[in-house]
Amino acid sequence: MQKFKVHFKPQNKSIVVEKGTDLLTAAIKAGVAISAACGGEGLCGKCKVSIGRNTVMACQTLVESDLSVDVPKSSTESHAAAKHESEDFTKGVISEREKGLKLAPIIRKIYVELSEPTQDDNTDDLERILRAVEAKIAHARISTKLSNIKHLSENLRDNAYKVTAVIAYEEGLVEMLAVEPGDTTDRLYGFAFDIGTTTVAGQLIDLNSGEILGTRIAFNKQSSYGSDVITRIIYASNPNGLLTLSKAVLSNIADIIDDLSDSCRVNLSVIYAAVLAGNMTMMHLLLKIDPANIRKAPYIPAATQFGPINAREVGININQRAAAVFLPGVSTYVGGDTIAGLLACGLPDNPELTLLIDIGTNGEIVLGNSEWMMGAAASAGPAFEGSGLECGMKAVKGAIQKAEIDQNFITKVETVWQEKPRGICGSGYIDILCQLLKRNIITKDGKINRSIKSSMVRNNGVNYEFVLVPKETSATGKDIVITEDDIENIKRSKGAIYSAIMSLLNKVEKKTSDIKKIYIAGGFGNYLNIENSIYIGLLPDIDRNIYEFIGNSSLAGARMVLLSRDLASRADAIRKNVTYLDLSGEPNYMDEYVASLFFPHTDMGRFPSAQ
Amino acid sequence: MQKFKVHFKPQNKSIVVEKGTDLLTAAIKAGVAISAACGGEGLCGKCKVSIGRNTVMACQTLVESDLSVDVPKSSTESHAAAKHESEDFTKGVISEREKGLKLAPIIRKIYVELSEPTQDDNTDDLERILRAVEAKIAHARISTKLSNIKHLSENLRDNAYKVTAVIAYEEGLVEMLAVEPGDTTDRLYGFAFDIGTTTVAGQLIDLNSGEILGTRIAFNKQSSYGSDVITRIIYASNPNGLLTLSKAVLSNIADIIDDLSDSCRVNLSVIYAAVLAGNMTMMHLLLKIDPANIRKAPYIPAATQFGPINAREVGININQRAAAVFLPGVSTYVGGDTIAGLLACGLPDNPELTLLIDIGTNGEIVLGNSEWMMGAAASAGPAFEGSGLECGMKAVKGAIQKAEIDQNFITKVETVWQEKPRGICGSGYIDILCQLLKRNIITKDGKINRSIKSSMVRNNGVNYEFVLVPKETSATGKDIVITEDDIENIKRSKGAIYSAIMSLLNKVEKKTSDIKKIYIAGGFGNYLNIENSIYIGLLPDIDRNIYEFIGNSSLAGARMVLLSRDLASRADAIRKNVTYLDLSGEPNYMDEYVASLFFPHTDMGRFPSAQ
Repeated sequence: MQKFKVHFKPQNKSIVVEKGTDLLTAAIKAGVAISAACGGEGLCGKCKVSIGRNTVMACQTLVESDLSVDVPKSSTESHAAAKHESEDFTKGVISEREKGLKLAPIIRKIYVELSEPTQDDNTDDLERILRAVEAKIAHARISTKLSNIKHLSENLRDNAYKVTAVIAYEEGLVEMLAVEPGDTTDRLYGFAFDIGTTTVAGQLIDLNSGEILGTRIAFNKQSSYGSDVITRIIYASNPNGLLTLSKAVLSNIADIIDDLSDSCRVNLSVIYAAVLAGNMTMMHLLLKIDPANIRKAPYIPAATQFGPINAREVGININQRAAAVFLPGVSTYVGGDTIAGLLACGLPDNPELTLLIDIGTNGEIVLGNSEWMMGAAASAGPAFEGSGLECGMKAVKGAIQKAEIDQNFITKVETVWQEKPRGICGSGYIDILCQLLKRNIITKDGKINRSIKSSMVRNNGVNYEFVLVPKETSATGKDIVITEDDIENIKRSKGAIYSAIMSLLNKVEKKTSDIKKIYIAGGFGNYLNIENSIYIGLLPDIDRNIYEFIGNSSLAGARMVLLSRDLASRADAIRKNVTYLDLSGEPNYMDEYVASLFFPHTDMGRFPSAQ
Repeated sequence: MQKFKVHFKPQNKSIVVEKGTDLLTAAIKAGVAISAACGGEGLCGKCKVSIGRNTVMACQTLVESDLSVDVPKSSTESHAAAKHESEDFTKGVISEREKGLKLAPIIRKIYVELSEPTQDDNTDDLERILRAVEAKIAHARISTKLSNIKHLSENLRDNAYKVTAVIAYEEGLVEMLAVEPGDTTDRLYGFAFDIGTTTVAGQLIDLNSGEILGTRIAFNKQSSYGSDVITRIIYASNPNGLLTLSKAVLSNIADIIDDLSDSCRVNLSVIYAAVLAGNMTMMHLLLKIDPANIRKAPYIPAATQFGPINAREVGININQRAAAVFLPGVSTYVGGDTIAGLLACGLPDNPELTLLIDIGTNGEIVLGNSEWMMGAAASAGPAFEGSGLECGMKAVKGAIQKAEIDQNFITKVETVWQEKPRGICGSGYIDILCQLLKRNIITKDGKINRSIKSSMVRNNGVNYEFVLVPKETSATGKDIVITEDDIENIKRSKGAIYSAIMSLLNKVEKKTSDIKKIYIAGGFGNYLNIENSIYIGLLPDIDRNIYEFIGNSSLAGARMVLLSRDLASRADAIRKNVTYLDLSGEPNYMDEYVASLFFPHTDMGRFPSAQ
């Protein structure tokens, strides 16, 4: 095999590579960190370099002779933290827990300088590197795949036996995922994902610092095939249905990966893990596992845990050897997203009675403490995620998250990142409903008061609606409104969650006043008005100080698992400690639910503050 | 999905399958064992059944309506043991050891009848089956791959929760490879392979009985790219060279699999393991691992052990979930074939000084006992495997394996299976050489005596040769001869092996008389004349009673690993206990070698019997 020398300017680094090696690979081997967001497929155009007067894409240029390559600063810029699309989730208890977490990611890079083999020290190449890594991490036995052996000999010799082993901690076992030339320990990244029924959120994390480089949120593309898990399971039973749904959510994931790696200038080849948390149906659909029995009594998933799998095999396009790790779940309706939430908020470490309420398309609720946990799920629907409502949207730029309506029915809004209003997110709807009630624009059962004389209240031909932002001041050029159907929708959502909380308490014979801490999670963005949430009957009317809004706890839990193998190894024990309560089997759940279809509740005695 | 009922006559078994299922799959699901040797690809034509008056191939016929299928006896015949192509290897010490082995294959089938899930027992499907299997085999934690989860739910429900788990024991871990409908425990098979530089041998084994159903031997197709490991390593450095060599030996393996599964009527889908033993270069080439450094000092292989790998991933076409298991080696020149040989002959269990001599293309020699072992390799070349000689052949049907030459230079031969002679195998050459020496047809340095007046001795234009079988009585229609070049070739081979034995003894300061047992292994077929081997100087001139010919011990070791997970788990400890002696670094090896290039030896004092 012919070999040529490539010299990189102005970095002044050289390397000898085989004929036909592409310049991006050569640069990485030489220790010149060239940006590329597409993984060397010639799509992102970020890896531009000059050879003489010609500018070429490094990843598309093959070495055919000795070369001198000029790498401009723009192609080697280290990542600049990408703007977060949503506001920062991490504060309060999650922030505290993350600060207390020892940074020990489930993926590590171990740089080793091996002694060269001699006649007396003729250990084979694989054992040579494994022994060195095992000694450094004090683990007795590291496994690896055949693909890492195929070119190991050349790799070691080309790099003077100085290489970096990428290792993954997987359920008590350690696997060497890859061997990189030279010392690449400074470049190691991972993704955390929350795969929700309605929204998919992802974060790119620097595993060396624990820093969140960027966050992206998108509506789950599966939504066009059904708004809830049941309709999607039905869709999955069609020919190719399962494949279509899997592709849809994988496309969400791909978009987030491309977008974040691009804006953070992190090459896909240095991203070695994706940790995913999601409900059971989402995990089945993503992994193309037949979900049919999830919706048939007695509601049995095919599996509730899915061992680490090669990311590419799953369809997640990061480093080809990267691991995809899935948070395990409890049962069909208490999934890995809830386990992630428990890890994030620390309920399983708390000796005091604590409630975690994760308001998504299903509202998952866990009550318990460090001794015991009981979980339930309420079909809340996606209203609080801004889906299925006239002007609903995710809690991203331009979403109305706070609102106040004055006596003239003029609404003052506050949006995420103070951008021009584009729509309304969950926390916005809660504020708006509260204000509509207080201004008597709507009745306690959620009907718009037809007697109000204001241009803000109108019949749109199909439905009564209230105008919050006229088109002149909206970012969309359209009026931003809330309709009577929207209100009905939210009423059912809040009723489902409130009644689930009460049923869970009844089951264990506790009262709301026994609860010492309540964590509210969900894709509301950075803000949730607890007072208003109580006023509309979403949350029990108790001491406000025990409430804490913790944002997307599923995403936070996935991130924390990515960053802490201690936490990762606890997930299984936690899931085993959660008892699942099937609300449909609870005799008084239906009564609770029907009684809650009122603002705040038919039993006003339960909401003294709202009187 | 539409489902139809299929009824099999005269077995009187029915099953409901999805529209479009092929009849072979349906039959197997229904518990009707239809023969098919091609794995359902429509090639073998064995799975013929009748529907009404039409005869069709079951594997090519898709269910489109309710059906009644007549399965003739010829399509369900249980396997008839295929004739072994070579004679039975297993006798003596190996046979004794196999009899003493507890039948506990590395692959097991566990039939479970699971309780149906209920609202109170809502364990997911995967955990349900894993718990049941774990309880049956008393193993705490069985892993499985995603592919086994995808259709698990349907599989369990379609089969009333009665299924068979196929599990593999892999280096202390247990993996569930597959879940089969119903009770299929009566059908479980595996292959053992010896991948030699010159020959590839394979056996199909019934894992329920331990029975060897058939044996096949072939010349390694890599031979056309180089006769020894060095030339093949050089070939592998060409573009696509490695791939070509891998394909060549995989094609050998495929031929053996197809031939044996066909003649034994064992469907590829019930073959769940292949255990392979071979020298390090063969393993590198098969697995497409760059072998370049094997031939460069200090001769370091990329790896000496290769964890179990999915057989299809390696390129071995048996059940798609089957495991390929590779015997680990010690170093570049003491490979998995030698470890297999040690396991087979039991040297590591023997407190007395024992010698294992495996005469292949390389002669691997291990001296030691249950306390210590030292191994060396001699470049014997493939002469004793019948390769590179004018009329050489493998020890298969028609190979001359015994010969006697009378005073009139007429040769009386005995062939494998008493068929018409086609050529000469290794043990035949040893007999012939011995006779040529005794009749003074050749000199002590291997030259044909030109003064002999006989039509059997002639000059073929290039070379002097001796005619053993005239074309009139040979199976090939050609004279079967031995040439002066053949004799020179064999002389170097026997010299390499004898001098390696002596160097090893010198190294540990032992004498030939200290050895209590000598096992001779190699592809000689069923027979090796020890007296004659000593007479030509291949083996030391000591007590004949300590010698035992054990045939292909690499293949036997692979088979025993397939059948015994206890033995499989010992391979690693054994390889670690073998010290490798590099003969090229031994100061007196060359002198020993040169002195041995004579029949029997330049130092006749070492061979008193030959005087």
